[in-house]
Amino acid sequence: MTRAETRRAPQDFERVLSSMCTDPHPAAREAAERFLATNPGDPETYPTVADLEREAVAMLGDVVALDDPHGYVAAGGTEANLQAVRAARNLADGDVNVVAPESAHFSFQKAADVLDVELRLAPTDDDHRADIDAVVDLADDDTAVVVGVAGTTEYGRVDPIPALADVAADVGARLHVDAAWGGFFLPFTDHDWSFSDAPVDTMTIDPHKVGQAPVPAGGFLARDPETLDALAIATPYLESDTQPTLGGTRSGGGVAGAHAVLSELWPGGYREQYERSQANADYLAAELSARGYDVVDPELPLVAADLPDDEFHALRDEGWRISRTASDALRVVCMPHVTREMLDAFLVDVDAVA
Amino acid sequence: MTRAETRRAPQDFERVLSSMCTDPHPAAREAAERFLATNPGDPETYPTVADLEREAVAMLGDVVALDDPHGYVAAGGTEANLQAVRAARNLADGDVNVVAPESAHFSFQKAADVLDVELRLAPTDDDHRADIDAVVDLADDDTAVVVGVAGTTEYGRVDPIPALADVAADVGARLHVDAAWGGFFLPFTDHDWSFSDAPVDTMTIDPHKVGQAPVPAGGFLARDPETLDALAIATPYLESDTQPTLGGTRSGGGVAGAHAVLSELWPGGYREQYERSQANADYLAAELSARGYDVVDPELPLVAADLPDDEFHALRDEGWRISRTASDALRVVCMPHVTREMLDAFLVDVDAVA
Repeated sequence: MTRAETRRAPQDFERVLSSMCTDPHPAAREAAERFLATNPGDPETYPTVADLEREAVAMLGDVVALDDPHGYVAAGGTEANLQAVRAARNLADGDVNVVAPESAHFSFQKAADVLDVELRLAPTDDDHRADIDAVVDLADDDTAVVVGVAGTTEYGRVDPIPALADVAADVGARLHVDAAWGGFFLPFTDHDWSFSDAPVDTMTIDPHKVGQAPVPAGGFLARDPETLDALAIATPYLESDTQPTLGGTRSGGGVAGAHAVLSELWPGGYREQYERSQANADYLAAELSARGYDVVDPELPLVAADLPDDEFHALRDEGWRISRTASDALRVVCMPHVTREMLDAFLVDVDAVA
Repeated sequence: MTRAETRRAPQDFERVLSSMCTDPHPAAREAAERFLATNPGDPETYPTVADLEREAVAMLGDVVALDDPHGYVAAGGTEANLQAVRAARNLADGDVNVVAPESAHFSFQKAADVLDVELRLAPTDDDHRADIDAVVDLADDDTAVVVGVAGTTEYGRVDPIPALADVAADVGARLHVDAAWGGFFLPFTDHDWSFSDAPVDTMTIDPHKVGQAPVPAGGFLARDPETLDALAIATPYLESDTQPTLGGTRSGGGVAGAHAVLSELWPGGYREQYERSQANADYLAAELSARGYDVVDPELPLVAADLPDDEFHALRDEGWRISRTASDALRVVCMPHVTREMLDAFLVDVDAVA
């Protein structure tokens, strides 16, 4: 293995339409590089980055309308979702189940396997949202947590969070909202999704997605301190006492990057980004629709459209990084790096392969 | 929150003696910065960093003497240890237990809570290694995995791995070796610890510790492909099929950094580092011993010594980042950033507070 071989170029974002990650904001990149060699998992050794994490969590609280938030910067949305289920399981007695819409991210399948809990998936309605009647049918006294998604991975849909909160309350379960992707768009919409819109117990909101922080910077937030207490493990050889995080050593770069970009963009910069991204999604949806493709109305900046298999593969052969929903619809995620010019170039190729 | 406030200086390493992290190697830092905006968790979108990960795993195989290793670059040692226990649990039937020495890292406590398995801790012997008789007493037909530590967090001790393998075989359990910290020192010692020294099933070896990669770059390795199969979760919307990792989106910077530094330092550079670090540990141990402190012989580059409580706190007040074992012994980890000059400066302060 020669040194030269390690100097390969990373993926650029010029043709990336499928990712829920994006090019980090310059302020985030700068901070991540500066704090690369720190570990917020050891706050007594690395106190500065530990301070940045506390401040980042406070700023995330502003985004999700929660005063005095309890939480931390996680490795990503999977960890945050897993921790929400773990806290619910640990706070309940005996064998428990989790009720989520089938649109929930596959990290809940992963969490169910890891945590050894039953995952009950409720069908979605015709508009790809959790079907409340189906959730009611699945929830029972053993349900530890009901999950709602605020910005689904496949269609960008927001589940009826207040109605899900009612179901959770009826069976004595907690309510977790997965806003990993949608959370930095939703404050600028009319959707009910936040801690102030419903009695949400925990939430996932990832700075390293629409928040434009570098990976790894997920967000796990809880309304009550009991949630973190239910996750705490003693840390004998560190000069701190307990650790609620799933990881031990953690990325200071992710924490510092999240802190820097939240400081820079919340709220005005994120509002402008939402408006640009939503306009791009509306544009792409209209253009695909005009070409005769069946398009799902983009309520958030994510476009799903039926595209024949051969056209999908021809576009991938052209270098477009695109992916499909479980029902084989093309999905284009209008992340911050996705510009009108990229979409126009993509449409030229859509026409060429049609 | 002003921009200026985000430009705080990170912790430097000048007085860090307690951390198992270190300043990344320059080649690792350069690669991590270059690949900051990539995600090996989505290999179809980010193929270059996915290639780097495969190559990094192959190089880790060289370090641990395993041809054709199966594994990945994890978020850290906690994830790797958790995944080893998860695979063992998933491959077993019914309620299982894990047997580990009490010197095992607290991530096994975390794993036991997360995975809902019983953790049975065996006492260590007078030299802080797993007591084999105690492990035999605790292991039974429900034991899914026996854990050995190759370089303990508190004393840098290497458990008798071949003897633990015999215990595991006797009860039909798997054998996991936690070499998170020790793994980049041990190839240059006479210890029996690797895949070629015993029928080890899985191992944790973290590039972001002694490997000098940036965080997050842990290492999870398995001898057989069945281990990763037991962890695989379907990934419906990605253009790949399944995912064995605990995280979804993962750090391309960690992967590229690990790849770069492994390419640069294995084996000669790591050998030199081991020799420097061990010489520093031997020096510090001798100097402390000469001053009358009770010192645990440093078999690997980690010095533990009895130090009165008031002296410990006085040294922390001087800015030294030091920590203690569960039995309140000072521990100094001779990581790559720890130089003879740092140790001399530390000894001056030890004398001053005595």
